[in-house]
Amino acid sequence: MRFNHFSIIDKPFYQQLQDLCELGFQFDRSLTYKALLSNWLLIAPVDPTSLAVSSTQTVSDFLASDEAGNRDLFYGVGLQLLGFVANFDFQFATASAFAESLNLPLVPADADWTRSETLVSAIYLLLNSRHKKGMTLVELWVSEGLLPLDHHHHFFNDKALATFDTSQLIREVVYIESPVDTQGRGSYDLIKAEIIRPQAEAQLPVILTASPYHFGTNDSANDAKLHDMTGDLADKTPACIDLTLDPLVLPDYPHDDLPAAPNNQATEHFTHAWTYSLNDYFLARGFASIYVGSVGTRGSDGFQSSGDYQQIAGVTAVIDWLNGRARAFTSRQKRQTLTADWATGRVAMTGKSYLGTLAYGAATTGIEGLEVILAEAGISNWYDYYRENGLVRSPGGFPGEDLDVLAEWTYSRNLEAADFLAHNASYQHQLTEMSQRLDRDSGDVNRYWQARNYLPNAEQVKADVLIVHGLQDFNVTPSHAFQFWHALPDHVTKHAFLHQGSHIYINQWQSLDFSETINAYFSAKLLDRDLTLDLPPIIWQANGKAQTFESLSTFGGTALETLPLGCPADPAADDPHDDDDGANLITFQNAYAPETFDRYGQDFHRFKADLFTGKANAAIVDLQLPQAVRLNGQIVLELALKVTDHKGLLSAQVLDFGPKQRLADTAALLEPKTLDRGRNFMLEDLRELPLVDKPYQVVTKGFLNLQNRQSLTEINSVVPNDWFTVTLALQPTIYEFEAGDTLRLILYSTDFEHTIRDNRAVTYDINLDKSRLYLPKTK
Amino acid sequence: MRFNHFSIIDKPFYQQLQDLCELGFQFDRSLTYKALLSNWLLIAPVDPTSLAVSSTQTVSDFLASDEAGNRDLFYGVGLQLLGFVANFDFQFATASAFAESLNLPLVPADADWTRSETLVSAIYLLLNSRHKKGMTLVELWVSEGLLPLDHHHHFFNDKALATFDTSQLIREVVYIESPVDTQGRGSYDLIKAEIIRPQAEAQLPVILTASPYHFGTNDSANDAKLHDMTGDLADKTPACIDLTLDPLVLPDYPHDDLPAAPNNQATEHFTHAWTYSLNDYFLARGFASIYVGSVGTRGSDGFQSSGDYQQIAGVTAVIDWLNGRARAFTSRQKRQTLTADWATGRVAMTGKSYLGTLAYGAATTGIEGLEVILAEAGISNWYDYYRENGLVRSPGGFPGEDLDVLAEWTYSRNLEAADFLAHNASYQHQLTEMSQRLDRDSGDVNRYWQARNYLPNAEQVKADVLIVHGLQDFNVTPSHAFQFWHALPDHVTKHAFLHQGSHIYINQWQSLDFSETINAYFSAKLLDRDLTLDLPPIIWQANGKAQTFESLSTFGGTALETLPLGCPADPAADDPHDDDDGANLITFQNAYAPETFDRYGQDFHRFKADLFTGKANAAIVDLQLPQAVRLNGQIVLELALKVTDHKGLLSAQVLDFGPKQRLADTAALLEPKTLDRGRNFMLEDLRELPLVDKPYQVVTKGFLNLQNRQSLTEINSVVPNDWFTVTLALQPTIYEFEAGDTLRLILYSTDFEHTIRDNRAVTYDINLDKSRLYLPKTK
Repeated sequence: MRFNHFSIIDKPFYQQLQDLCELGFQFDRSLTYKALLSNWLLIAPVDPTSLAVSSTQTVSDFLASDEAGNRDLFYGVGLQLLGFVANFDFQFATASAFAESLNLPLVPADADWTRSETLVSAIYLLLNSRHKKGMTLVELWVSEGLLPLDHHHHFFNDKALATFDTSQLIREVVYIESPVDTQGRGSYDLIKAEIIRPQAEAQLPVILTASPYHFGTNDSANDAKLHDMTGDLADKTPACIDLTLDPLVLPDYPHDDLPAAPNNQATEHFTHAWTYSLNDYFLARGFASIYVGSVGTRGSDGFQSSGDYQQIAGVTAVIDWLNGRARAFTSRQKRQTLTADWATGRVAMTGKSYLGTLAYGAATTGIEGLEVILAEAGISNWYDYYRENGLVRSPGGFPGEDLDVLAEWTYSRNLEAADFLAHNASYQHQLTEMSQRLDRDSGDVNRYWQARNYLPNAEQVKADVLIVHGLQDFNVTPSHAFQFWHALPDHVTKHAFLHQGSHIYINQWQSLDFSETINAYFSAKLLDRDLTLDLPPIIWQANGKAQTFESLSTFGGTALETLPLGCPADPAADDPHDDDDGANLITFQNAYAPETFDRYGQDFHRFKADLFTGKANAAIVDLQLPQAVRLNGQIVLELALKVTDHKGLLSAQVLDFGPKQRLADTAALLEPKTLDRGRNFMLEDLRELPLVDKPYQVVTKGFLNLQNRQSLTEINSVVPNDWFTVTLALQPTIYEFEAGDTLRLILYSTDFEHTIRDNRAVTYDINLDKSRLYLPKTK
Repeated sequence: MRFNHFSIIDKPFYQQLQDLCELGFQFDRSLTYKALLSNWLLIAPVDPTSLAVSSTQTVSDFLASDEAGNRDLFYGVGLQLLGFVANFDFQFATASAFAESLNLPLVPADADWTRSETLVSAIYLLLNSRHKKGMTLVELWVSEGLLPLDHHHHFFNDKALATFDTSQLIREVVYIESPVDTQGRGSYDLIKAEIIRPQAEAQLPVILTASPYHFGTNDSANDAKLHDMTGDLADKTPACIDLTLDPLVLPDYPHDDLPAAPNNQATEHFTHAWTYSLNDYFLARGFASIYVGSVGTRGSDGFQSSGDYQQIAGVTAVIDWLNGRARAFTSRQKRQTLTADWATGRVAMTGKSYLGTLAYGAATTGIEGLEVILAEAGISNWYDYYRENGLVRSPGGFPGEDLDVLAEWTYSRNLEAADFLAHNASYQHQLTEMSQRLDRDSGDVNRYWQARNYLPNAEQVKADVLIVHGLQDFNVTPSHAFQFWHALPDHVTKHAFLHQGSHIYINQWQSLDFSETINAYFSAKLLDRDLTLDLPPIIWQANGKAQTFESLSTFGGTALETLPLGCPADPAADDPHDDDDGANLITFQNAYAPETFDRYGQDFHRFKADLFTGKANAAIVDLQLPQAVRLNGQIVLELALKVTDHKGLLSAQVLDFGPKQRLADTAALLEPKTLDRGRNFMLEDLRELPLVDKPYQVVTKGFLNLQNRQSLTEINSVVPNDWFTVTLALQPTIYEFEAGDTLRLILYSTDFEHTIRDNRAVTYDINLDKSRLYLPKTK
């Protein structure tokens, strides 16, 4: 087991004392080491008589004895407080070495244990340390009742503590007036918002989570809408694509004066709502939660516009309301107005996937009041979610999905039969238009897609940007985080957690103090305090190692290593054959026998298993890496290619090939219900990515329509059997190869998970002597 | 999707009206159908304007119209209330047919929908029906606020409703004086009990869960104690074993008078405790929870005696205290006494595995106050958990475990370093004695084991017995439920839920109203009401079908079908060879090549995969079943056998062989956090056993030491190369084979999951002409 602490803020001694005093621990420095230790344990919510200091002495006996304290003695006790079992998990004689092996924050090895300052600082660090069951000791003790639930903010090490009573939460619904009219009704769309907030005298900041899934999803409609992936790749006429957008014009409707609700009280309340673990964590710490679905979702007005700035406006309307710039009503019938008199107006947005997407989008409006976003596995450009380089490219795991399918899934107004009756026919007209404008035939970018690209507006961002993204996320690929990261202007503060999971949350993990780190950040930004946290730009989870996170300065290295694919000294390029011209060629076919094609189509996992082990149609180049190298950024392939047709698609995957212990990409359950988000509130399971045996590991991949080989906005022709050069940038990642590892490059055309399933007979030749792989790296 | 309702109690119409009135629904039968429907929907916690009655009409429009109601119209609305999406999940025109396909309880097809009685009865049944997300509609609506939290018991259809406020629970610790002294200290062991109870004016009944895991487990000590499975099977001297037990003698210590706690108030409280979903469900319905670890667990006195009646006495002491027959103290220091003035004294015991075991054990004491036990996958005889037929036989999935390993795991006093210091040395003496008395060498039963067999005391049982057991549970095998079932005297009321899962809980499942059924039972037994539930003796989950449960009258059929193994017409017995005598022989070896032996030993799953597909050392007999047959009970093998040694072990497994859709043995997640155990309290994930593709299905298995072939208590000799007959009863189960299915019988010796890993060269011959399989069956 190994802990990684990023949330601990280095504090001068006098502030440590002050923080400890806030918890009720008063350290009179004139007292002896033992008196201080005893006082601390007597106030702590533990039974000190259950503890021992050594294999022969209890804490009680030690405190009554003449013996002096020392490092192993302190950490022997400390480890018991952190949930480790003395005599079994660790031995007293080597307690501090065990604590070091856990990567716990410790006072220096040469500290003088006769000084009370050493003890106090050690206690301070211990309270900031993670318990075996995943909470920091101070958070565990507060949840055990160390502080009363007084509905005021309290801080320890600049992080808010759980002192708000989650058993008495206010749960209310308001309907917020957005500035858009997506249905063309002649009135502004009202947006339903669910507010969960602790009772408090002072005004509270808000954690806003915008989710089109929040009020339900229409799974049957989604399934009926899925596209067939089988077909022939389209022939595209050479052209240039203009992406210039008209500015979004907002409607301007006459203002109606409506009365205020009596006592400014909401009239609609609720019991059940889907909530997120991190929001629940902040609720107990004095941050309200607001959940909003935006236009076209159950309880709101309007149609599902799927990613454009109208949908974003349906989200930012909440922030406007919280800051007095928009109206809200007690009901969808719009009879009485409500103000957010309980709110400070400061907002953070959070959430994964579509939720993180809307956080990206909202940030690019530069709206006042949005102080920080935590975008987890968000989409920053919708084209890159459903397309890639002029090609329809399904998100990993979801062949056949497209933006119109997602629209049907999230147009949750259809979950209500009365709403279906009133509006579905009209909605289907808009959906049909969406399906056309997506241009699924060509796979090209166009203005419709560009209206759903947040990157050109990154210059507007004022909020701090915190990103979480899985480097094994091939649903929402790492490119979304990478592009947003690099699009942000210099003045924006940004940090990214890049983990080795797939499309998952990381806030239940044992080894990483993620929630506490976000707490330090949000406490500063939303409660108007100094940001004292010293967070590195990139927190990177090392691949191939359990529970190991490192601080990096950049996502995307500038040092390029060039790996020639056809180097004669390359022992892996052992399968090429010389053609008539003596060139070093490698060849693959596109077409499969019908039964193989059907089998792969029925289950793309079978295709992947064959592809990675050299049993599918593909050219494989195995490159032995003589030295360790840390890939950081986008591998770029430069390939000399010819095909037997006037169109084609190129797929590429890079594997770390060969059996090894590697991290799984989803988190395994370590222990159920051990993370308390408040005081016995919303208990969460403890999880972690386990190390497992794997025959290989996908590192990155990429896809390209050969007609878009120059640029996304330029359609070129392909001349059959003529050589040309293709440059393909793969998904960005950070991955450490060890010396002797095999980098397997797989080049092929049809991919049964991601691309059109085209079974035409096409032959691809690659001249390895003129092809190379550029690998960006950092130390 | 398909629902199975066992909790619905058939009620006369006047009681339906009364139950509905309790919920606030008053049906004036002079009103029209529409007025009644309207009144109901207006009081219900739903938005009636969101509902439609057809593809062209909303509920509001219908209510204002002249049109008449009908069956499809009612169920169209009803299905929306149960969470099904109109126009997508179902169509209005066929709503009642869809409701039938879900197996919802419906009013008769020929009911007269102009009569208000039809509507009222349909509403009554609908409220008792399951919502798509797993709660009954009435429970969902109560959790949404239909009734106030008034801390009084309310009932609907004779089941308690969630009207107790779980945000204001009392959590307190008491130390109960048991009648045993397992450490020989000269004083009675105190037992720590955690009480969680809602505030209430009236006295409350108790759900008691006894779990040696409750206060923590010592995982490191467990792992260090595991036994090596590799070795030679012991030679046993022929003998008879006497199992006569001395009665348990309880100590008799002088009584000390101690003062009562002021106001009878507990002084120790807690925030965090592991709780079980079913207990949480009952908490909200006015049943207190008590968790107890018994002797040798953290916070209690004594040593871990692992399954004997001393450990049981540490559990039943709680029931004695609740009924005023035992004392409890506010602290382990025993200074002040406490009475359970808040309790009625009526108790149900619940829990799975060791927890269900202690429920079986407690029931066999016949203690007053224990009204009913719900024993889920419990052990009824410890010998049968770690041994079988004179053989060490590890529980499935846990090779190397034994009772002494379990003792180390659950002796949680060692989790506290101060307790370790004071008592571990002395405990290890007792543990060493336990290890000796287990007699792991011979695998024979003896008095030590017999002291941990509850079956001989089943005659004492007074409580009603509810059993839950997985027919795919090869950890705690179905024999424990089967033996207890058949050991119970006739006057005891008993019911069993036999599901197709492994060692799992079934109370989160979508298709089965398990919690509600137990609610009906416990509401009657613990709240002193009539037991109106008409529950069949056996609720059996059909194998090979999704979400299907049937009512059966018996566990263990008496009609035997005899399947000769050597029948010449048997197409499967195709691999025998005639030996010199012309007999129809089948042969297998025990020994493996060293590398195979090691590979199987490192991962027994590899062994199982090879065994089931004919790649391991085994004799395989495939029997084609000409007709469908429902196996119910224990398959018995009668085999004519000879071996080349004077000792040996026989393993047998029966498979339903051949690829087919079958139920997985663990429940898959359907939707997270949708089951509300109270009012937004302890939200549970919705789960179900999914149908998956499987190449075969283990139906049953069994193991035998050839020296114990006559009887468990009689050790016989084996003469090398002499024929003898072995009778081996396999694990009881209920399993439906279809006509044409292949019953695969696998006979072998060493099993790398369950038995000693003995690699001696031994040859086994079976004369198929003299061997048969007896299959008990029911229709």
